[in-house]
Amino acid sequence: MPTIKKRTVFFVSDGTGLTAEALGHSLLTQFEEVEFKQIRIPFLDTVEQAQEAVVRINAQGEVDGMRPIVFTTLVNQKLAAIVHQADAFCLSYFETFLAPLEAELGVKSSHTVGRSHGSADSSDYKNRIEAINYTLAHDDGITDRDLAEADVILVAVSRCGKTPTSLYLAMQFGLKAANFPLIPEDFDRGYLPGTLEKHRSKLFGLTIQPERLHHIREERRADSKYASLANCRYEIAEAEKMMRREGIRWLDSSTKSIEEISTTILQELKLR
Amino acid sequence: MPTIKKRTVFFVSDGTGLTAEALGHSLLTQFEEVEFKQIRIPFLDTVEQAQEAVVRINAQGEVDGMRPIVFTTLVNQKLAAIVHQADAFCLSYFETFLAPLEAELGVKSSHTVGRSHGSADSSDYKNRIEAINYTLAHDDGITDRDLAEADVILVAVSRCGKTPTSLYLAMQFGLKAANFPLIPEDFDRGYLPGTLEKHRSKLFGLTIQPERLHHIREERRADSKYASLANCRYEIAEAEKMMRREGIRWLDSSTKSIEEISTTILQELKLR
Repeated sequence: MPTIKKRTVFFVSDGTGLTAEALGHSLLTQFEEVEFKQIRIPFLDTVEQAQEAVVRINAQGEVDGMRPIVFTTLVNQKLAAIVHQADAFCLSYFETFLAPLEAELGVKSSHTVGRSHGSADSSDYKNRIEAINYTLAHDDGITDRDLAEADVILVAVSRCGKTPTSLYLAMQFGLKAANFPLIPEDFDRGYLPGTLEKHRSKLFGLTIQPERLHHIREERRADSKYASLANCRYEIAEAEKMMRREGIRWLDSSTKSIEEISTTILQELKLR
Repeated sequence: MPTIKKRTVFFVSDGTGLTAEALGHSLLTQFEEVEFKQIRIPFLDTVEQAQEAVVRINAQGEVDGMRPIVFTTLVNQKLAAIVHQADAFCLSYFETFLAPLEAELGVKSSHTVGRSHGSADSSDYKNRIEAINYTLAHDDGITDRDLAEADVILVAVSRCGKTPTSLYLAMQFGLKAANFPLIPEDFDRGYLPGTLEKHRSKLFGLTIQPERLHHIREERRADSKYASLANCRYEIAEAEKMMRREGIRWLDSSTKSIEEISTTILQELKLR
């Protein structure tokens, strides 16, 4: 049995630190036998805050008996220089990549604090907020008004992940994502619900393993017909038959995160 | 007037590519005079796909008359080696940072494809989905049931960004975020809405510049009393007065993105 090592990791940023954390996290997951305590220090934008961060990092190192690991995305070089004086193992995204990029592009970087999520005034950002509102107003087949505006319309039987996926598509990519449940009445009738027929090119289906659906539905309505394995098998089989017949692209969401499902939908529908 | 340069950027990943894109984007925003065309190639996990990516990158270079820039987060070293043969300027997050991290930690990385967003089976992931469902069920004061479960309860007058912020807190951080509108009746009465009194420690307020609120509300209900600048001024002043009196922490969302607002709330309420 290998000893579990413990290390503290700081993500230091002049913005939200979300990007620093996302990349750091994907690197740290490569070291399974190490246990990481992760601390984010966002919005660092004064010399005083940089000095405070150094004190905090050094104090943690004393407690741990081992120097912390520090990931930084500090655009301001003066502040970066202060933080990098901490008694820590520092990895700087910007210092590492900006100089080679400047050389390749033949221009100097502006060294302005990044608004990588878009300023609240940008049109990109407004589109995202509008997409979230659209998506909430078109969740779970609430309405088929304004479907012409949708970028994508998800269809699936209840509890396949339509709602979280729709919201992620809106929030991350600014896509207007409507979603419609496929219900037994649709299968009996043999038609797509509502007015989806004329929006066929925007349709994307989700499916799921019946056992998994059974498990998820049991948590909501234990011992109901709705949650029974037999009914889950029936609904999934009918939904897949309908999607095949209608030529709707679909994927199995059973083991996929909403990020993975959303990225696949973007690829398949050639959005963005 | 400087010439605008155009360059194509590829984000190549064996996962969703979202992390590669986020970091790449924050680096690219440092070069304002360059226009970047950004292409994501996600889920690259076979030799054949790696070779196809090289063909695609090289073809783009021919079209552009300039080699593309390629950001990669490929854990598989064999696939990374193939992609890096492209006639492009390649920056590899993993190759750059993994070796120094291995040296610092004194262990080899597992070189397994990262599930940085969490596998759909992990408890973290389940918490996120549960938080999204909770948040949708507690949007805009729909109910004050189960508020004891909330991690945070946002309060603000209509159209300050409560809903998108709540959803972001749930989706990104797995926090159960309820939100309640502050309405004129609350100001007249001089009390917090509903049963918020006993959840005071979880309350966080949003406010906004009256001019901006007026503008946002006009887009929804033009020429209404609701949207009038005078009414927006009145509601904001009353809401701020109430929050001050009740000792509720709050921030001005006028120029902040939902990522910035959410990160600030986490900091202020010392969540996570």
